Amino acid sequence: MAGSQHPNSFVSALFSDRHIGVGAQPHVHHMLSTLGFASLEELSAAALPESIYTTEPLSLQAAVSEEAMLAELKALAAKNTVNKSFIGQGYYGTHTPGVIQRNVLESPAWYTAYTPYQPEISQGRLEALLNFQTVVADLTGMVTANASMLDEGTAAAEAVALMRRSNRTAAPDAVILVDADVFPQTLAVINTRAKAMGIPVLVHDFADDGALPDVEFFGLLLQYPGDSGLVRDLAPVIAAAKERKAVVAVAADLLALTLLESPGALGADLAVGTSQRFGVPMGFGGPHAGYMAVRQGLERSLPGRLVGVSKDAAGNQAYRLALQTREQHIRREKATSNICTAQVLLAVMAGMYAVYHGPEGLRKIATRVHALTLAVADAATAAGHAVVHGNFFDTVKIRIAAGSGHSAAELVAAAHTAGYLLRQIDHGHLQIAVDETTTEADVAALAGLLAGRAPSGGNSARATDLPADASGVDLPTPARATEYMANAVFHTHNSETQMLRYLRRLSDADYALDRGMIPLGSCTMKLNATAEMAAITWPEFSELHPFAPASDTVGMVEMATQLEEWLAEITGYDAVSVQPNAGSQGEFAGLMAIRAFHVENGNPDRDVVLIPTSAHGTNAASAVMAGLKVVPVATDGFGNIDIDDLKRRISVHEHRLAAIMVTYPSTHGVFETSISTICAMVHDAGGQVYVDGANLNALVGLARPGKFGADVSHLNLHKTFCIPHGGGGPGVGPVAVGAHLAKHLPARELGLDSSVGLVSSAPYGSASILPISWAYIRMMGPDGLRLATQTAILSANYIARRLSEHYPVLYTGAHDLVAHECILDLRGISADSGVSVDDVAKRLIDYGFHAPTMSFPVAGTLMVEPTESEDLGELDRFIDAMIAIRKEISAVQDGLWPAEDNPLANAPHTAQSLTREWDHPYSREEAVFPAGVDPRAKYWPVVRRVDQAYGDRHLVCSCPSIEELAEVF
Amino acid sequence: MAGSQHPNSFVSALFSDRHIGVGAQPHVHHMLSTLGFASLEELSAAALPESIYTTEPLSLQAAVSEEAMLAELKALAAKNTVNKSFIGQGYYGTHTPGVIQRNVLESPAWYTAYTPYQPEISQGRLEALLNFQTVVADLTGMVTANASMLDEGTAAAEAVALMRRSNRTAAPDAVILVDADVFPQTLAVINTRAKAMGIPVLVHDFADDGALPDVEFFGLLLQYPGDSGLVRDLAPVIAAAKERKAVVAVAADLLALTLLESPGALGADLAVGTSQRFGVPMGFGGPHAGYMAVRQGLERSLPGRLVGVSKDAAGNQAYRLALQTREQHIRREKATSNICTAQVLLAVMAGMYAVYHGPEGLRKIATRVHALTLAVADAATAAGHAVVHGNFFDTVKIRIAAGSGHSAAELVAAAHTAGYLLRQIDHGHLQIAVDETTTEADVAALAGLLAGRAPSGGNSARATDLPADASGVDLPTPARATEYMANAVFHTHNSETQMLRYLRRLSDADYALDRGMIPLGSCTMKLNATAEMAAITWPEFSELHPFAPASDTVGMVEMATQLEEWLAEITGYDAVSVQPNAGSQGEFAGLMAIRAFHVENGNPDRDVVLIPTSAHGTNAASAVMAGLKVVPVATDGFGNIDIDDLKRRISVHEHRLAAIMVTYPSTHGVFETSISTICAMVHDAGGQVYVDGANLNALVGLARPGKFGADVSHLNLHKTFCIPHGGGGPGVGPVAVGAHLAKHLPARELGLDSSVGLVSSAPYGSASILPISWAYIRMMGPDGLRLATQTAILSANYIARRLSEHYPVLYTGAHDLVAHECILDLRGISADSGVSVDDVAKRLIDYGFHAPTMSFPVAGTLMVEPTESEDLGELDRFIDAMIAIRKEISAVQDGLWPAEDNPLANAPHTAQSLTREWDHPYSREEAVFPAGVDPRAKYWPVVRRVDQAYGDRHLVCSCPSIEELAEVF
Repeated sequence: MAGSQHPNSFVSALFSDRHIGVGAQPHVHHMLSTLGFASLEELSAAALPESIYTTEPLSLQAAVSEEAMLAELKALAAKNTVNKSFIGQGYYGTHTPGVIQRNVLESPAWYTAYTPYQPEISQGRLEALLNFQTVVADLTGMVTANASMLDEGTAAAEAVALMRRSNRTAAPDAVILVDADVFPQTLAVINTRAKAMGIPVLVHDFADDGALPDVEFFGLLLQYPGDSGLVRDLAPVIAAAKERKAVVAVAADLLALTLLESPGALGADLAVGTSQRFGVPMGFGGPHAGYMAVRQGLERSLPGRLVGVSKDAAGNQAYRLALQTREQHIRREKATSNICTAQVLLAVMAGMYAVYHGPEGLRKIATRVHALTLAVADAATAAGHAVVHGNFFDTVKIRIAAGSGHSAAELVAAAHTAGYLLRQIDHGHLQIAVDETTTEADVAALAGLLAGRAPSGGNSARATDLPADASGVDLPTPARATEYMANAVFHTHNSETQMLRYLRRLSDADYALDRGMIPLGSCTMKLNATAEMAAITWPEFSELHPFAPASDTVGMVEMATQLEEWLAEITGYDAVSVQPNAGSQGEFAGLMAIRAFHVENGNPDRDVVLIPTSAHGTNAASAVMAGLKVVPVATDGFGNIDIDDLKRRISVHEHRLAAIMVTYPSTHGVFETSISTICAMVHDAGGQVYVDGANLNALVGLARPGKFGADVSHLNLHKTFCIPHGGGGPGVGPVAVGAHLAKHLPARELGLDSSVGLVSSAPYGSASILPISWAYIRMMGPDGLRLATQTAILSANYIARRLSEHYPVLYTGAHDLVAHECILDLRGISADSGVSVDDVAKRLIDYGFHAPTMSFPVAGTLMVEPTESEDLGELDRFIDAMIAIRKEISAVQDGLWPAEDNPLANAPHTAQSLTREWDHPYSREEAVFPAGVDPRAKYWPVVRRVDQAYGDRHLVCSCPSIEELAEVF
Repeated sequence: MAGSQHPNSFVSALFSDRHIGVGAQPHVHHMLSTLGFASLEELSAAALPESIYTTEPLSLQAAVSEEAMLAELKALAAKNTVNKSFIGQGYYGTHTPGVIQRNVLESPAWYTAYTPYQPEISQGRLEALLNFQTVVADLTGMVTANASMLDEGTAAAEAVALMRRSNRTAAPDAVILVDADVFPQTLAVINTRAKAMGIPVLVHDFADDGALPDVEFFGLLLQYPGDSGLVRDLAPVIAAAKERKAVVAVAADLLALTLLESPGALGADLAVGTSQRFGVPMGFGGPHAGYMAVRQGLERSLPGRLVGVSKDAAGNQAYRLALQTREQHIRREKATSNICTAQVLLAVMAGMYAVYHGPEGLRKIATRVHALTLAVADAATAAGHAVVHGNFFDTVKIRIAAGSGHSAAELVAAAHTAGYLLRQIDHGHLQIAVDETTTEADVAALAGLLAGRAPSGGNSARATDLPADASGVDLPTPARATEYMANAVFHTHNSETQMLRYLRRLSDADYALDRGMIPLGSCTMKLNATAEMAAITWPEFSELHPFAPASDTVGMVEMATQLEEWLAEITGYDAVSVQPNAGSQGEFAGLMAIRAFHVENGNPDRDVVLIPTSAHGTNAASAVMAGLKVVPVATDGFGNIDIDDLKRRISVHEHRLAAIMVTYPSTHGVFETSISTICAMVHDAGGQVYVDGANLNALVGLARPGKFGADVSHLNLHKTFCIPHGGGGPGVGPVAVGAHLAKHLPARELGLDSSVGLVSSAPYGSASILPISWAYIRMMGPDGLRLATQTAILSANYIARRLSEHYPVLYTGAHDLVAHECILDLRGISADSGVSVDDVAKRLIDYGFHAPTMSFPVAGTLMVEPTESEDLGELDRFIDAMIAIRKEISAVQDGLWPAEDNPLANAPHTAQSLTREWDHPYSREEAVFPAGVDPRAKYWPVVRRVDQAYGDRHLVCSCPSIEELAEVF
């Protein structure tokens, strides 16, 4: 721990010494000398182009210790006031079961995992996601649900796009018809997205006669129960819409669906919504798992990730991501959505909440919620007010009696004073939404408030007469007649002991950062420190409703604003918005800002965006969603943008050029020296420069995109700034812009004007995880951040240099250096040996590693990014494993092992495989304990190589029934 | 979850439904019908003797939900005030590294583990304990440290006993000489214990000339640094004492030892103390790990548990408990200590704190503490006060200047007002102890207070001039010259990523309740619910100093007092003390109360305690420590106390009869019907009845010892009341007594009068874990507690009945029923087959279970206790495994497998063993995946059967050096 470069290290403990793995000076010197450099400063100066490299310190406060950071964050938290929310509107209080909070949300085994692209080492979270999909599909009455959406608003917007593309008969100018009783934030996100896609939105009030308007619409989106609390039988309007060849989506509340007939049974084609109230704290708006589920026939149009059942090489059942060819990383500009990061950790929590409660438990919760809502309605009536809708689930709309002497605003204010948040609709109306956390004492207090009395206070108030059991409760209609959650998994883990063991068993199947390195190029899997994670379960942050009064959320907004300012300083931009709740959303927001900028400047026809062929697929998909046309730009033999081709493209599209999207350092892991030239060329042609922040971990403290020529970037707080990947989300994708684009950032809140509008349902997106990045920056300080970047570059170059004798390193930049990652080129080796990049990736599992990024950006290669958090021991362990694997490849090449039967082709090996007849030309020991693997530290995958194609041919995306299993196997 | 018997289950979620595993009514009915009963009530009435059985509900508040309980507990917590402590006196502020808090203290994999008696499934915590032992041995300069003591006070008292018995030459009436500068609470505990053992204590002040008194002493206990903060060079006095043939112990502060020469190097024979300040919160006094370390030659006299290195059946290094024959469960009344439960979880934390910081890190922390202490001393001098001792580590004793206008009391009061706790010594003196959490701002504030100014407040105050680095700090003497913590483990896991992975890897080696059932008879391994665990890390409880002003600890004391009242109600006694910090200490306290009672009544010669031969060894060991004589009583062929023998014993010892100690239900797992008779017989003879509460889980809500004839019991909160076993501690052993014994409970606080005195260092013992039991009782309520007991009895009888066809059930009571556990008699089977009870226990590991209790109370048997927390699925899985094992035994019996080579003899099997040549008469599959074992849920031990004797012959009890390894293997 002698790595500190701080003069006063004696005085305060440095978090950076814990965060940075290569701390000991002898280790740093060993690595530097391998590369021929004397210091980290010398290495950095050589690696980065002089035109962008800076030694100017970031203007951030000096680092503080973990304890001091937590004290500061506590002080911010103390500026929030957690009043009890009855606002509803898509966000509800919920009890996170302790066993789930501790063993999922607070467990590194779950939260430090990566997206389950390598299914063999992800069976635990894949099973958990399959549970989630089953819950959603069952409750909505659909056939296929995906593994989560970012939130309800974006899910609804994606539903609009899905309805548009799946309706082949509607005219191009047909409208999307949206229920006037939809949540306002959902409408706002739909408006943002529809505008970008050129889809006209017609909001229609079904309240009067339920009739459809006389206009052509390709799709209809209904809310169920409505924003006003009203529950309607949607069957007639759905039938009428389908008669007019429209596709119908229903935004539905999952808890209500335990009592109400499902959208599927009512005839809808798809359903969207959120699973937040299934045990995920409100968190001032997020993160939580949105959902989308579709009827049979639409599954191949689903956006986002989808888990399905397949089989492994031994013929055993195995889970994996299904239908990946739909996704943006494959389809690029032809993708139908830009979503990549989902909300896996939150979907796991919601799914487990359902597993723990089971269908009876959920129904009991819903029934109690409804009984309390009935009591609220009775209290309102008793106080002389009118209850507007008679058929409701959890939300009562109240018309305040004219003679009561109080306006709605006054009652809401009185409630706020008493610690309750009600929702004011207008001068004469307010709404009260009940949830799982509501107590009888709360209802009694609300009754008092509605009657114009001060609440009697305390838990002793018991003014409500609840029925003694569920059978006495008058349920809303249409009553649920269809079954749900019949699978055994929902009837097995209902005691805390059983639940604890189920969670342990699933997490034991998975490989996460708590086991070893996850050297994923472009994904930056670094330490997610405990101190960074501490605040996300503090009630002062986690229990805030996103539409709580501003006076309740002062600390939260201050924290988020500070983070925005710090990110602006780090990136060199002028303004940042943390609202986008994934990198894809940040990209979309950034491109929308560029589009708005051109419109503002009288150039609405500037709609061409240049994207290098090596770019992430998401870039192209986001561009299309923002209504832009994608024009590819070639890269040269060194992985750099081909300047001549760029020139040509610019000149062809000169007057339509909106922007160029580049990743820096490039997706090839190289600091392109021509970056300044490229920026200048595009600016000269009137375009804007978008720098994808995926690789920002190579720049922090060394170079600032906003200063070297870029106009806009999105960042990935889950890559560079320590938000854990959560097994595939949550992510946060702030958008950062120059001053000239600041006014085109997403709207700061619902109802506020912005040229772009809302890009996610909540003003600050996934607000409750922002403290993680805040904590990281505060504890690292300017020196620590810079040292981290330098170490990440050192480690990547150390690996590249040591492995270069064994595997060609595809691209390097100045001084033969890579940036923070390196691409190992296996194409020649594969051609010679028949050993594929897949084989190497799977064989790494036997050695106890997560595979590097496979075949991106170049097919047949592996991209390795160690990050600054790995220590020399782990780096060497990885290098040694890769060298040992190279020797194994040689054995195949040399004919010692046949191409179809060798440790690589058969990888990964399970413990179970050892007990079977063994007729391989290599030993069991060579299979599972190859050179250097410590049997006491062995990671055992629970399945062998998964057959991806088989599962896509036999699609099963929910907990399989016996019949389905019989069909698959 | 339909198991609720509560009428209003609709209204509030019942925790008991989560705690009790067998919840579903069909499951309960299935189990009842297996036994031929129609209801739980009927079963309970049949199982318990009518003379003790009660249907009267416990007078406790009705159960509340998890959330409501947490709200109540928060309200109690809010009554505490966490002021910053500078009291010292053995308790110090410390930063628990987040990675250790989350992944040890808050990880079920660590805290739900049992004592590592089965080493094959405990390698992780055994390695962690070996680290702890190494840290203690290295820092104290001793050869062998044990795996923890209960606290510093009891460790010192045990040291006195050790010195007495290891000094063969001193006269029987020789005194123990105790340094006057010892912590007052340590002296109090020594006095309690020495009085019981008849050892005279002489307190001697070495301050003047350091000369030894002119009296014969067998041992000398010194404190280093002293209670007054003074650091003396102990070498001369130690040498002088040894010249007089005394044994010398030093109570030493581990952090100070990173700077000061070790007791071992100064010539001491043993060292004791606490590791609390190594990352374990003060917690109002506990729990934390005390320690004891001895020079070569004394290791076989060490009390408590000791981890050592041995080898497994494959010849690989393996850890296990060493020298178990010293322990009370073997030696009974010949034992030298009654300790069984230790403080494993806290020892693991302290050991990991040292692993994380490494020797350089610890030295840095100590140096900073000392530098700040120097600053405090300077400030005192600057304010005109006198610093009493010139050579100190972290504590400054200040003589208040007469002219300052303030008394010590006034300054202490002013500091309290400012949020600082100082220690007043007398009118003219106060002490200030600095720790890891002290900041420069704190020192500045203290400087202001000492100068009579109000503190300027805030963290901005920076009046101290600390040296820029450690080399500028003037260190105390005798300076440390000897090395410590040289092993690689202390130089490898210094980044958070490395630490996280180390903790994960170790916990993966172990089997705890988060994997499956731990059916340990008499140990009651039940659910430790997350909600119960939540409060132990709340700062309002965890950061209280045990000697903080009463006004700061109102909520803590209220909570502990409520718990005492609830426990009294449950057990039917009149008074309870939670001070004893382990069951052994509760036993000691209970027996001391009995002894004091007899003395009070003029019967000082009543010193015989009758103990059935089937009793826990601890009973006898505790009796001896309380100065009583043990007389065994026989048991009959049914496992019950032989009434005739009892009669004989009573008549022989009539006038000397002090008490009988019985366990109820008996250690044979049976409700003895004669319990009322036994109580009456003893009372008639003038004796008291002690009921060991180990089996209270069979009584709660059904019968109350205090009402059916007992006078005193100790309870085990870590058995019946959900405190997790922590891998071998912490435990809490409250003592409960009838009204006539109430005045003989341990002293309520230091300095208060009590006939017995203090039995542990802190007034409320391990106070910070009391909220666990408080939460359990509050959430279960009277109905839930009763239902839990009934279910525990149901499950034990279900197992007994289903297994009785396959294994004889040794003892049953009325209606052929057992209580909450059953003994499976393998003696006949072993005689016939050669398969030992050990073989079955180890084979259960292959099936994925922790072994039942082995050979207690009857050699050659297994005692099974499922508890109420297991569900029918897990009970059946266990039963099926036992039946499958019985078939395997038959295969050996029938000669299908040889006696020396079969799956039982070779159990457990590791994954590694599968890769070796396989010449066994059974297959690899039969070895590791026998009937019913799901390969995806397989638990893999990391070692094969451990050779216990080998390790005792080659004793290595710290992280082995290369040389030691070479010698062992």
